[in-house]
Amino acid sequence: MTRYKLTLEYDGTNLIGWQVNKDGPSVQSLVTDAIYQFCGERVDVVGAGRTDAGVHAMAMIAHVNIEKETDADTVMNAVNFYLKHANAPVVVLNCTAVSDEFHARFSATKRRYRYAILCRRAPAVMDANRVWWMPRELDVDAMKSAAAKLIGNHDFTSFRASECQAKSPVKTLDSIDVATRVEEFGTYVFIDVAARSFLHHMVRNIVGTLVEIGHGKDMDIEKILGARDRSAAGPTAPASGLYFMGAEYSNNA
Amino acid sequence: MTRYKLTLEYDGTNLIGWQVNKDGPSVQSLVTDAIYQFCGERVDVVGAGRTDAGVHAMAMIAHVNIEKETDADTVMNAVNFYLKHANAPVVVLNCTAVSDEFHARFSATKRRYRYAILCRRAPAVMDANRVWWMPRELDVDAMKSAAAKLIGNHDFTSFRASECQAKSPVKTLDSIDVATRVEEFGTYVFIDVAARSFLHHMVRNIVGTLVEIGHGKDMDIEKILGARDRSAAGPTAPASGLYFMGAEYSNNA
Repeated sequence: MTRYKLTLEYDGTNLIGWQVNKDGPSVQSLVTDAIYQFCGERVDVVGAGRTDAGVHAMAMIAHVNIEKETDADTVMNAVNFYLKHANAPVVVLNCTAVSDEFHARFSATKRRYRYAILCRRAPAVMDANRVWWMPRELDVDAMKSAAAKLIGNHDFTSFRASECQAKSPVKTLDSIDVATRVEEFGTYVFIDVAARSFLHHMVRNIVGTLVEIGHGKDMDIEKILGARDRSAAGPTAPASGLYFMGAEYSNNA
Repeated sequence: MTRYKLTLEYDGTNLIGWQVNKDGPSVQSLVTDAIYQFCGERVDVVGAGRTDAGVHAMAMIAHVNIEKETDADTVMNAVNFYLKHANAPVVVLNCTAVSDEFHARFSATKRRYRYAILCRRAPAVMDANRVWWMPRELDVDAMKSAAAKLIGNHDFTSFRASECQAKSPVKTLDSIDVATRVEEFGTYVFIDVAARSFLHHMVRNIVGTLVEIGHGKDMDIEKILGARDRSAAGPTAPASGLYFMGAEYSNNA
């Protein structure tokens, strides 16, 4: 048996999310099926993050155990062949053989997400399903000031989905950056976050709150954190603007 | 009657192209229908370029004549409302009232196109239908040298589709730039071209030829131009990588 580390890109628009479920195609089900077609083994695809329906990944990290004697290049090419054959919106960007100690979920020391917003009068077309479109401008300076107060170790109960299964609501947000890219017909606002781990919907709830602040609503991050109450924060931002950007590991395989 | 200049963005993936045709939705048919729903007038939508099926636009310029007394802001908002209602992959980015002298097609002094290529082992997923994906690397320096020889006034018969209806195969290519953007899991190659006007498939035939050169094929641009024979040049690049980027007008409206 060899363990392989996979880097996956996926367009989450038509997926039910990361996890296998009877309701439709998931990243796990598509990758599992492609590997089965390659080697006849039904493997468990373990990911660094379990993204929701509509959320994308530029570099999701996963691992699988394969009994068949093969090599990483062959795994990558074969899995991509079967994914393409199935017209799956998922692809393997990189594949390496790793030690059995490597665990895509439990060994991750950092996870990075990006949230993309497009501000312009006209609805998004080339970026449909890939951004949160809003016709009103955002006060990015106000968003930056508010975002800075989220950095560090906090009880993030106010930014936690009710279905969240994490044992503790206490997390350490390593960084959060709000940046803009001005184009002729609109402005993109990117919110980049990094932490060892996140609560369910934590990034989307942070973005929903920062957008309220960007639209001029008087909200105090310290008070919101202190309230430990989901209703103190802003709404959940849509899935379409969220991207899993990568994960880091102490002994990077 | 007032003439309006429209700037349109569209995702050409599921369109039959610019022109109205019974075979499916076109940019013209979708915009015509949206304007009809707004004001009850069946207008002729005249564009700066007539893009093929699968070709995109970041800023196609068009004009329409509307009898109804209204204003440019209302036209933009109403047309976008009906385009969104129809789930059309087309949007109005900008709308201004212009003089009756303005003609989106005949007054254009420059048209700009971009062609996007993604070089990496893994097929394109987030960029599916938006680039020409190729697993082999390109020799961009060789492409740049070859491209430079296309600039200026030439008989472009070798780069002209057989169905092309232009009176003369002689065109002046103002500029062509080949640039790269290296990312962690692949390299984008962008080919930007500008000219007053182009022959049918001229950009895609130029790109197909430059890609052959980028893959090491020994082709001489001067000989290809001199041959005045379509078979002397490379194949037609796929529509998916082509974007209409904008048009310029002497009295910019």
